[in-house]
Amino acid sequence: MTRILYSLCGADDSRPFSPHCWKIVLALRHKGLDFIEKPTPFTGIPQLENGFSKTVPILRDGNELIRDSFDIALYLEEAYPDRPTLFGGEGGKALSRFVEGFSQTLIHPAITRIAVKSIHDMLEEKDRIYFRESREARLGRTLEEVDASRQAEVGAFAARLEPIRHILKYQEFIGGDGPLFADYILFGALQWMRITAGARVFGDDDPVAVWFERCLDLHDGVGRRVTAA
Amino acid sequence: MTRILYSLCGADDSRPFSPHCWKIVLALRHKGLDFIEKPTPFTGIPQLENGFSKTVPILRDGNELIRDSFDIALYLEEAYPDRPTLFGGEGGKALSRFVEGFSQTLIHPAITRIAVKSIHDMLEEKDRIYFRESREARLGRTLEEVDASRQAEVGAFAARLEPIRHILKYQEFIGGDGPLFADYILFGALQWMRITAGARVFGDDDPVAVWFERCLDLHDGVGRRVTAA
Repeated sequence: MTRILYSLCGADDSRPFSPHCWKIVLALRHKGLDFIEKPTPFTGIPQLENGFSKTVPILRDGNELIRDSFDIALYLEEAYPDRPTLFGGEGGKALSRFVEGFSQTLIHPAITRIAVKSIHDMLEEKDRIYFRESREARLGRTLEEVDASRQAEVGAFAARLEPIRHILKYQEFIGGDGPLFADYILFGALQWMRITAGARVFGDDDPVAVWFERCLDLHDGVGRRVTAA
Repeated sequence: MTRILYSLCGADDSRPFSPHCWKIVLALRHKGLDFIEKPTPFTGIPQLENGFSKTVPILRDGNELIRDSFDIALYLEEAYPDRPTLFGGEGGKALSRFVEGFSQTLIHPAITRIAVKSIHDMLEEKDRIYFRESREARLGRTLEEVDASRQAEVGAFAARLEPIRHILKYQEFIGGDGPLFADYILFGALQWMRITAGARVFGDDDPVAVWFERCLDLHDGVGRRVTAA
Protein backbone atom coordinates (compact mmCIF):
# COMPACT_ATOMS: atom_id res chain seq x y z
CA MET A 1 0.00 0.00 0.00
CA THR A 2 1.31 3.41 -0.90
CA ARG A 3 1.08 6.10 1.73
CA ILE A 4 1.88 9.59 0.44
CA LEU A 5 2.02 12.86 2.37
CA TYR A 6 1.81 15.88 0.10
CA SER A 7 3.51 18.77 1.89
CA LEU A 8 4.70 22.28 1.04
CA CYS A 9 8.07 23.55 -0.16
CA GLY A 10 9.74 26.49 -1.81
CA ALA A 11 12.49 26.33 -4.45
CA ASP A 12 14.37 23.73 -2.37
CA ASP A 13 12.21 20.66 -1.94
CA SER A 14 14.47 19.32 0.83
CA ARG A 15 13.19 22.08 3.15
CA PRO A 16 9.42 21.54 3.57
CA PHE A 17 8.19 24.22 5.97
CA SER A 18 4.39 24.15 6.39
CA PRO A 19 3.35 24.02 10.07
CA HIS A 20 0.32 21.89 9.25
CA CYS A 21 2.38 19.39 7.26
CA TRP A 22 4.96 19.08 10.03
CA LYS A 23 2.15 18.14 12.43
CA ILE A 24 1.37 15.19 10.15
CA VAL A 25 5.01 14.14 9.64
CA LEU A 26 5.27 13.78 13.41
CA ALA A 27 1.83 12.16 13.70
CA LEU A 28 2.68 9.51 11.08
CA ARG A 29 6.00 8.77 12.80
CA HIS A 30 4.21 8.67 16.18
CA LYS A 31 1.94 5.96 14.75
CA GLY A 32 4.96 4.15 13.31
CA LEU A 33 3.61 4.41 9.75
CA ASP A 34 5.88 4.52 6.69
CA PHE A 35 5.17 7.17 4.10
CA ILE A 36 6.64 9.01 1.16
CA GLU A 37 6.67 12.80 1.53
CA LYS A 38 6.10 14.78 -1.66
CA PRO A 39 6.88 18.45 -1.03
CA THR A 40 4.98 20.63 -3.50
CA PRO A 41 5.22 24.36 -4.29
CA PHE A 42 2.16 26.56 -3.57
CA THR A 43 1.07 26.77 -7.21
CA GLY A 44 1.38 23.00 -7.67
CA ILE A 45 -1.14 22.15 -4.94
CA PRO A 46 -4.33 22.61 -7.03
CA GLN A 47 -3.08 19.90 -9.44
CA LEU A 48 -2.47 17.28 -6.74
CA GLU A 49 -4.77 14.23 -6.76
CA ASN A 50 -7.07 15.70 -9.44
CA GLY A 51 -7.62 18.94 -7.53
CA PHE A 52 -8.65 17.25 -4.29
CA SER A 53 -7.72 20.20 -2.04
CA LYS A 54 -6.57 23.81 -2.22
CA THR A 55 -4.22 23.27 0.71
CA VAL A 56 -1.75 20.74 2.04
CA PRO A 57 -1.31 18.48 3.91
CA ILE A 58 -3.08 15.90 1.83
CA LEU A 59 -2.66 12.28 2.87
CA ARG A 60 -3.17 9.41 0.48
CA ASP A 61 -3.44 6.18 2.44
CA GLY A 62 -4.11 3.40 -0.04
CA ASN A 63 -7.56 4.22 -1.38
CA GLU A 64 -8.24 6.90 1.24
CA LEU A 65 -7.62 10.57 0.56
CA ILE A 66 -7.78 13.02 3.49
CA ARG A 67 -7.12 16.74 3.78
CA ASP A 68 -6.73 19.16 6.74
CA SER A 69 -4.19 18.39 9.45
CA PHE A 70 -6.69 17.86 12.27
CA ASP A 71 -8.90 15.64 10.13
CA ILE A 72 -5.85 13.61 9.09
CA ALA A 73 -4.91 13.12 12.75
CA LEU A 74 -8.45 12.01 13.57
CA TYR A 75 -8.34 9.63 10.60
CA LEU A 76 -5.03 8.12 11.72
CA GLU A 77 -6.35 7.62 15.25
CA GLU A 78 -9.41 5.81 13.95
CA ALA A 79 -7.68 3.83 11.20
CA TYR A 80 -4.78 2.70 13.41
CA PRO A 81 -6.24 2.27 16.91
CA ASP A 82 -3.63 -0.31 17.93
CA ARG A 83 -0.73 2.07 17.30
CA PRO A 84 0.30 4.67 19.95
CA THR A 85 -2.53 7.11 20.54
CA LEU A 86 -2.36 10.69 19.23
CA PHE A 87 -5.03 12.00 21.61
CA GLY A 88 -5.17 9.87 24.77
CA GLY A 89 -8.94 9.51 24.66
CA GLU A 90 -12.00 11.59 23.85
CA GLY A 91 -11.13 14.41 26.24
CA GLY A 92 -7.72 14.79 24.65
CA LYS A 93 -9.33 14.85 21.22
CA ALA A 94 -11.66 17.69 22.21
CA LEU A 95 -8.97 19.70 23.99
CA SER A 96 -6.50 19.34 21.12
CA ARG A 97 -8.84 21.69 19.25
CA PHE A 98 -8.08 24.25 21.94
CA VAL A 99 -4.36 23.87 21.38
CA GLU A 100 -5.06 24.31 17.67
CA GLY A 101 -7.08 27.43 18.46
CA PHE A 102 -4.29 28.85 20.61
CA SER A 103 -1.67 28.08 17.97
CA GLN A 104 -3.64 29.41 15.00
CA THR A 105 -5.16 32.53 16.55
CA LEU A 106 -2.28 33.72 18.76
CA ILE A 107 0.95 32.09 17.55
CA HIS A 108 0.57 31.77 13.76
CA PRO A 109 -0.20 35.48 13.22
CA ALA A 110 2.94 36.44 15.17
CA ILE A 111 5.07 33.96 13.21
CA THR A 112 3.61 35.26 9.96
CA ARG A 113 4.73 38.78 10.87
CA ILE A 114 8.22 37.47 11.66
CA ALA A 115 8.66 35.07 8.75
CA VAL A 116 6.52 36.21 5.83
CA LYS A 117 9.33 37.93 3.92
CA SER A 118 11.70 35.01 4.53
CA ILE A 119 9.09 32.59 3.23
CA HIS A 120 8.63 34.70 0.11
CA ASP A 121 12.36 34.66 -0.52
CA MET A 122 12.46 30.84 -0.33
CA LEU A 123 9.94 30.44 -3.17
CA GLU A 124 10.34 30.03 -6.91
CA GLU A 125 9.39 33.03 -9.03
CA LYS A 126 5.92 31.73 -9.96
CA ASP A 127 5.07 31.04 -6.31
CA ARG A 128 6.44 34.40 -5.21
CA ILE A 129 3.84 36.18 -7.33
CA TYR A 130 0.98 34.09 -5.88
CA PHE A 131 2.35 34.40 -2.33
CA ARG A 132 2.89 38.16 -2.42
CA GLU A 133 -0.58 38.87 -3.83
CA SER A 134 -2.47 36.59 -1.46
CA ARG A 135 -0.51 37.53 1.68
CA GLU A 136 -0.47 41.28 1.05
CA ALA A 137 -4.25 41.16 0.56
CA ARG A 138 -4.67 39.22 3.80
CA LEU A 139 -2.24 41.37 5.83
CA GLY A 140 -3.29 44.70 4.35
CA ARG A 141 0.37 45.71 4.00
CA THR A 142 3.29 44.96 1.70
CA LEU A 143 5.60 42.14 2.75
CA GLU A 144 8.35 44.72 3.22
CA GLU A 145 6.16 46.81 5.54
CA VAL A 146 5.42 43.74 7.65
CA ASP A 147 9.10 42.80 7.67
CA ALA A 148 10.09 46.24 8.98
CA SER A 149 8.72 45.35 12.42
CA ARG A 150 10.32 41.90 12.49
CA GLN A 151 12.75 42.62 15.32
CA ALA A 152 9.99 44.00 17.54
CA GLU A 153 7.89 40.90 16.83
CA VAL A 154 10.84 38.62 17.63
CA GLY A 155 11.30 40.42 20.95
CA ALA A 156 7.63 40.09 21.86
CA PHE A 157 7.33 36.45 20.83
CA ALA A 158 8.51 34.50 23.89
CA ALA A 159 5.90 36.15 26.14
CA ARG A 160 3.13 34.70 23.97
CA LEU A 161 4.03 31.20 25.16
CA GLU A 162 3.21 31.75 28.86
CA PRO A 163 0.41 29.13 28.84
CA ILE A 164 2.98 26.55 27.66
CA ARG A 165 5.44 27.51 30.40
CA HIS A 166 2.64 26.92 32.89
CA ILE A 167 1.96 23.39 31.62
CA LEU A 168 5.69 22.54 31.52
CA LYS A 169 5.89 23.12 35.28
CA TYR A 170 3.86 19.94 35.67
CA GLN A 171 4.83 17.70 32.77
CA GLU A 172 7.47 17.11 30.07
CA PHE A 173 5.08 17.41 27.16
CA ILE A 174 1.79 19.17 26.48
CA GLY A 175 0.35 15.66 26.20
CA GLY A 176 1.72 14.60 29.62
CA ASP A 177 4.66 12.23 30.15
CA GLY A 178 5.00 11.75 26.41
CA PRO A 179 4.01 13.73 23.31
CA LEU A 180 0.53 13.73 21.80
CA PHE A 181 -0.85 15.44 18.70
CA ALA A 182 -1.24 18.58 20.83
CA ASP A 183 2.55 18.77 21.05
CA TYR A 184 2.85 18.38 17.30
CA ILE A 185 0.39 21.24 16.76
CA LEU A 186 2.59 23.74 18.55
CA PHE A 187 5.78 22.07 17.33
CA GLY A 188 4.59 22.58 13.76
CA ALA A 189 4.26 26.31 14.34
CA LEU A 190 7.73 26.72 15.86
CA GLN A 191 9.31 24.41 13.28
CA TRP A 192 7.77 26.56 10.52
CA MET A 193 9.47 29.63 12.03
CA ARG A 194 12.74 27.74 12.57
CA ILE A 195 13.03 26.58 8.96
CA THR A 196 11.88 29.80 7.28
CA ALA A 197 13.07 32.66 9.49
CA GLY A 198 15.49 30.94 11.87
CA ALA A 199 14.60 33.66 14.36
CA ARG A 200 16.08 33.32 17.83
CA VAL A 201 13.01 33.94 19.96
CA PHE A 202 13.81 32.08 23.21
CA GLY A 203 16.61 32.12 25.73
CA ASP A 204 18.42 28.76 25.96
CA ASP A 205 17.01 27.97 29.40
CA ASP A 206 13.46 28.97 28.52
CA PRO A 207 11.32 25.87 29.30
CA VAL A 208 9.58 26.29 25.93
CA ALA A 209 12.97 26.16 24.16
CA VAL A 210 13.88 23.03 26.13
CA TRP A 211 10.55 21.41 25.16
CA PHE A 212 11.05 22.37 21.50
CA GLU A 213 14.53 20.81 21.46
CA ARG A 214 12.97 17.68 22.98
CA CYS A 215 10.44 17.63 20.13
CA LEU A 216 13.19 18.08 17.52
CA ASP A 217 14.73 14.86 18.87
CA LEU A 218 11.52 12.81 18.66
CA HIS A 219 11.16 9.93 16.18
CA ASP A 220 14.85 9.72 15.24
CA GLY A 221 15.18 13.49 15.05
CA VAL A 222 12.91 13.81 12.02
CA GLY A 223 12.31 17.47 12.86
CA ARG A 224 16.00 18.29 13.32
CA ARG A 225 16.84 16.74 9.94
CA VAL A 226 15.87 20.00 8.23
CA THR A 227 18.27 22.64 9.53
CA ALA A 228 17.31 26.05 10.82
CA ALA A 229 17.38 28.98 8.39
CA MET B 1 -20.02 11.38 55.40
CA THR B 2 -19.58 15.12 55.48
CA ARG B 3 -18.29 16.76 52.33
CA ILE B 4 -17.37 20.44 52.77
CA LEU B 5 -16.13 22.89 50.16
CA TYR B 6 -14.48 25.93 51.71
CA SER B 7 -14.78 28.79 49.24
CA LEU B 8 -14.25 32.55 49.25
CA CYS B 9 -16.63 35.44 49.93
CA GLY B 10 -16.72 39.10 50.82
CA ALA B 11 -19.11 40.77 53.26
CA ASP B 12 -22.05 38.89 51.69
CA ASP B 13 -21.50 35.16 52.09
CA SER B 14 -24.25 34.41 49.56
CA ARG B 15 -22.00 35.69 46.76
CA PRO B 16 -18.91 33.45 46.67
CA PHE B 17 -16.74 34.69 43.81
CA SER B 18 -13.41 32.84 43.62
CA PRO B 19 -12.72 31.44 40.13
CA HIS B 20 -10.91 28.44 41.56
CA CYS B 21 -13.77 27.63 43.93
CA TRP B 22 -16.37 27.90 41.16
CA LYS B 23 -14.41 25.29 39.19
CA ILE B 24 -14.91 22.90 42.11
CA VAL B 25 -18.60 23.73 42.63
CA LEU B 26 -19.19 22.69 39.03
CA ALA B 27 -16.85 19.68 39.30
CA LEU B 28 -18.68 18.36 42.38
CA ARG B 29 -22.05 18.82 40.69
CA HIS B 30 -20.66 17.17 37.53
CA LYS B 31 -19.79 14.13 39.65
CA GLY B 32 -23.22 14.24 41.29
CA LEU B 33 -21.71 14.66 44.76
CA ASP B 34 -23.52 16.44 47.61
CA PHE B 35 -21.57 19.00 49.56
CA ILE B 36 -21.91 21.90 51.96
CA GLU B 37 -20.26 25.11 50.75
CA LYS B 38 -18.71 27.28 53.44
CA PRO B 39 -17.79 30.66 51.97
CA THR B 40 -15.01 32.26 54.01
CA PRO B 41 -13.51 35.78 53.92
CA PHE B 42 -9.82 36.15 52.92
CA THR B 43 -8.57 36.65 56.48
CA GLY B 44 -10.50 33.62 57.74
CA ILE B 45 -8.78 31.14 55.40
CA PRO B 46 -5.62 30.59 57.52
CA GLN B 47 -7.80 29.33 60.39
CA LEU B 48 -9.67 26.73 58.31
CA GLU B 49 -8.98 23.07 59.15
CA ASN B 50 -6.12 23.92 61.53
CA GLY B 51 -4.27 26.05 59.00
CA PHE B 52 -4.29 23.41 56.25
CA SER B 53 -3.93 25.89 53.37
CA LYS B 54 -3.33 29.57 52.71
CA THR B 55 -5.81 29.50 49.83
CA VAL B 56 -9.22 28.10 48.95
CA PRO B 57 -10.72 25.94 47.60
CA ILE B 58 -10.19 23.37 50.29
CA LEU B 59 -12.24 20.18 50.06
CA ARG B 60 -12.95 18.00 53.06
CA ASP B 61 -14.25 14.67 51.88
CA GLY B 62 -14.77 12.48 54.95
CA ASN B 63 -11.25 11.97 56.26
CA GLU B 64 -9.59 13.38 53.16
CA LEU B 65 -8.46 17.00 52.97
CA ILE B 66 -7.35 18.40 49.59
CA ARG B 67 -6.29 21.85 48.43
CA ASP B 68 -5.72 23.45 44.98
CA SER B 69 -8.48 23.32 42.38
CA PHE B 70 -6.63 21.13 39.88
CA ASP B 71 -5.54 18.69 42.59
CA ILE B 72 -9.11 18.53 43.87
CA ALA B 73 -10.37 17.72 40.37
CA LEU B 74 -7.74 14.98 40.01
CA TYR B 75 -8.75 13.63 43.43
CA LEU B 76 -12.44 13.55 42.49
CA GLU B 77 -11.67 11.76 39.23
CA GLU B 78 -9.68 9.09 41.07
CA ALA B 79 -11.97 8.76 44.08
CA TYR B 80 -15.19 8.58 42.03
CA PRO B 81 -14.26 6.80 38.81
CA ASP B 82 -17.80 5.51 38.25
CA ARG B 83 -19.30 9.00 38.16
CA PRO B 84 -19.17 11.13 34.95
CA THR B 85 -15.58 11.85 33.99
CA LEU B 86 -14.06 15.32 34.46
CA PHE B 87 -11.23 14.73 32.00
CA GLY B 88 -12.22 12.12 29.42
CA GLY B 89 -9.01 10.13 29.80
CA GLU B 90 -5.30 10.75 30.29
CA GLY B 91 -4.95 13.06 27.29
CA GLY B 92 -7.75 15.26 28.59
CA LYS B 93 -6.08 15.35 31.99
CA ALA B 94 -2.79 16.54 30.51
CA LEU B 95 -4.37 19.11 28.19
CA SER B 96 -6.59 20.53 30.93
CA ARG B 97 -3.36 21.93 32.35
CA PHE B 98 -3.02 23.90 29.13
CA VAL B 99 -6.51 25.37 29.55
CA GLU B 100 -5.47 26.25 33.12
CA GLY B 101 -2.32 27.87 31.77
CA PHE B 102 -4.28 29.87 29.20
CA SER B 103 -6.82 30.98 31.81
CA GLN B 104 -4.32 31.89 34.51
CA THR B 105 -1.65 33.56 32.40
CA LEU B 106 -3.81 35.40 29.82
CA ILE B 107 -7.36 35.71 31.19
CA HIS B 108 -6.94 36.10 34.97
CA PRO B 109 -4.58 39.09 34.72
CA ALA B 110 -7.06 40.89 32.44
CA ILE B 111 -9.97 40.14 34.79
CA THR B 112 -7.90 41.33 37.74
CA ARG B 113 -7.38 44.66 36.01
CA ILE B 114 -11.13 44.93 35.34
CA ALA B 115 -12.44 43.69 38.69
CA VAL B 116 -9.87 44.38 41.40
CA LYS B 117 -11.52 47.55 42.71
CA SER B 118 -14.97 45.95 42.63
CA ILE B 119 -13.65 42.95 44.58
CA HIS B 120 -12.14 45.28 47.17
CA ASP B 121 -15.46 47.05 47.59
CA MET B 122 -17.27 43.74 48.26
CA LEU B 123 -15.05 42.90 51.24
CA GLU B 124 -15.41 43.56 54.96
CA GLU B 125 -13.11 46.21 56.41
CA LYS B 126 -10.54 43.74 57.79
CA ASP B 127 -10.28 41.95 54.45
CA ARG B 128 -10.05 45.22 52.55
CA ILE B 129 -6.83 46.09 54.37
CA TYR B 130 -5.29 42.67 53.58
CA PHE B 131 -6.54 42.75 49.98
CA ARG B 132 -5.34 46.26 49.20
CA GLU B 133 -1.86 45.65 50.62
CA SER B 134 -1.32 42.31 48.91
CA ARG B 135 -2.80 43.30 45.53
CA GLU B 136 -1.13 46.69 45.32
CA ALA B 137 2.22 45.02 46.07
CA ARG B 138 1.55 42.45 43.34
CA LEU B 139 0.26 44.93 40.76
CA GLY B 140 2.76 47.70 41.53
CA ARG B 141 -0.05 50.28 41.42
CA THR B 142 -2.88 51.43 43.68
CA LEU B 143 -6.25 49.78 43.12
CA GLU B 144 -7.57 53.15 41.95
CA GLU B 145 -4.78 53.45 39.35
CA VAL B 146 -5.61 50.00 38.02
CA ASP B 147 -9.33 50.83 38.00
CA ALA B 148 -8.72 53.96 35.92
CA SER B 149 -8.08 51.81 32.83
CA ARG B 150 -11.06 49.52 33.45
CA GLN B 151 -13.04 50.59 30.39
CA ALA B 152 -10.07 50.08 28.08
CA GLU B 153 -9.55 46.60 29.57
CA VAL B 154 -13.24 45.77 29.13
CA GLY B 155 -13.02 46.79 25.46
CA ALA B 156 -9.94 44.65 24.86
CA PHE B 157 -11.25 41.60 26.69
CA ALA B 158 -13.33 39.77 24.06
CA ALA B 159 -10.39 39.53 21.66
CA ARG B 160 -8.46 37.51 24.24
CA LEU B 161 -10.89 34.62 23.80
CA GLU B 162 -10.11 33.90 20.12
CA PRO B 163 -8.80 30.39 20.87
CA ILE B 164 -12.17 29.57 22.45
CA ARG B 165 -14.08 30.91 19.45
CA HIS B 166 -11.98 28.58 17.29
CA ILE B 167 -12.91 25.51 19.34
CA LEU B 168 -16.60 26.46 19.42
CA LYS B 169 -16.72 26.21 15.62
CA TYR B 170 -16.35 22.46 16.05
CA GLN B 171 -18.07 21.60 19.33
CA GLU B 172 -20.54 22.89 21.94
CA PHE B 173 -18.11 22.72 24.85
CA ILE B 174 -14.35 22.90 25.30
CA GLY B 175 -14.64 19.28 26.44
CA GLY B 176 -16.50 18.24 23.27
CA ASP B 177 -20.23 17.38 23.11
CA GLY B 178 -20.56 17.93 26.85
CA PRO B 179 -18.61 19.89 29.46
CA LEU B 180 -15.43 18.68 31.12
CA PHE B 181 -13.26 20.22 33.84
CA ALA B 182 -11.61 22.29 31.09
CA ASP B 183 -14.93 24.12 30.63
CA TYR B 184 -15.18 24.74 34.36
CA ILE B 185 -11.67 26.23 34.39
CA LEU B 186 -12.61 28.98 31.98
CA PHE B 187 -16.16 29.25 33.34
CA GLY B 188 -14.67 29.94 36.78
CA ALA B 189 -12.73 32.90 35.42
CA LEU B 190 -15.72 34.46 33.65
CA GLN B 191 -18.03 33.75 36.60
CA TRP B 192 -15.55 35.54 38.89
CA MET B 193 -15.77 38.62 36.65
CA ARG B 194 -19.57 38.33 36.36
CA ILE B 195 -20.15 38.25 40.11
CA THR B 196 -17.60 40.89 41.09
CA ALA B 197 -17.49 43.41 38.25
CA GLY B 198 -20.55 42.48 36.17
CA ALA B 199 -18.67 43.88 33.20
CA ARG B 200 -20.31 43.47 29.81
CA VAL B 201 -17.40 42.17 27.77
CA PHE B 202 -19.13 40.21 24.97
CA GLY B 203 -21.76 40.93 22.35
CA ASP B 204 -24.86 38.76 22.79
CA ASP B 205 -24.15 36.68 19.71
CA ASP B 206 -20.48 36.16 20.51
CA PRO B 207 -20.01 32.36 20.54
CA VAL B 208 -18.09 32.69 23.82
CA ALA B 209 -21.08 34.49 25.41
CA VAL B 210 -23.40 31.73 24.14
CA TRP B 211 -21.10 29.07 25.60
CA PHE B 212 -20.91 30.94 28.93
CA GLU B 213 -24.73 31.15 29.14
CA ARG B 214 -24.82 27.40 28.43
CA CYS B 215 -22.43 26.85 31.34
CA LEU B 216 -24.54 29.06 33.66
CA ASP B 217 -27.43 26.66 32.97
CA LEU B 218 -25.48 23.49 33.80
CA HIS B 219 -26.31 21.40 36.86
CA ASP B 220 -29.65 23.07 37.64
CA GLY B 221 -28.25 26.52 36.96
CA VAL B 222 -25.92 26.46 39.97
CA GLY B 223 -23.79 29.18 38.38
CA ARG B 224 -26.74 31.42 37.55
CA ARG B 225 -28.03 31.21 41.14
CA VAL B 226 -25.60 33.98 42.12
CA THR B 227 -26.63 37.06 40.14
CA ALA B 228 -24.28 39.30 38.18
CA ALA B 229 -22.93 42.40 39.89
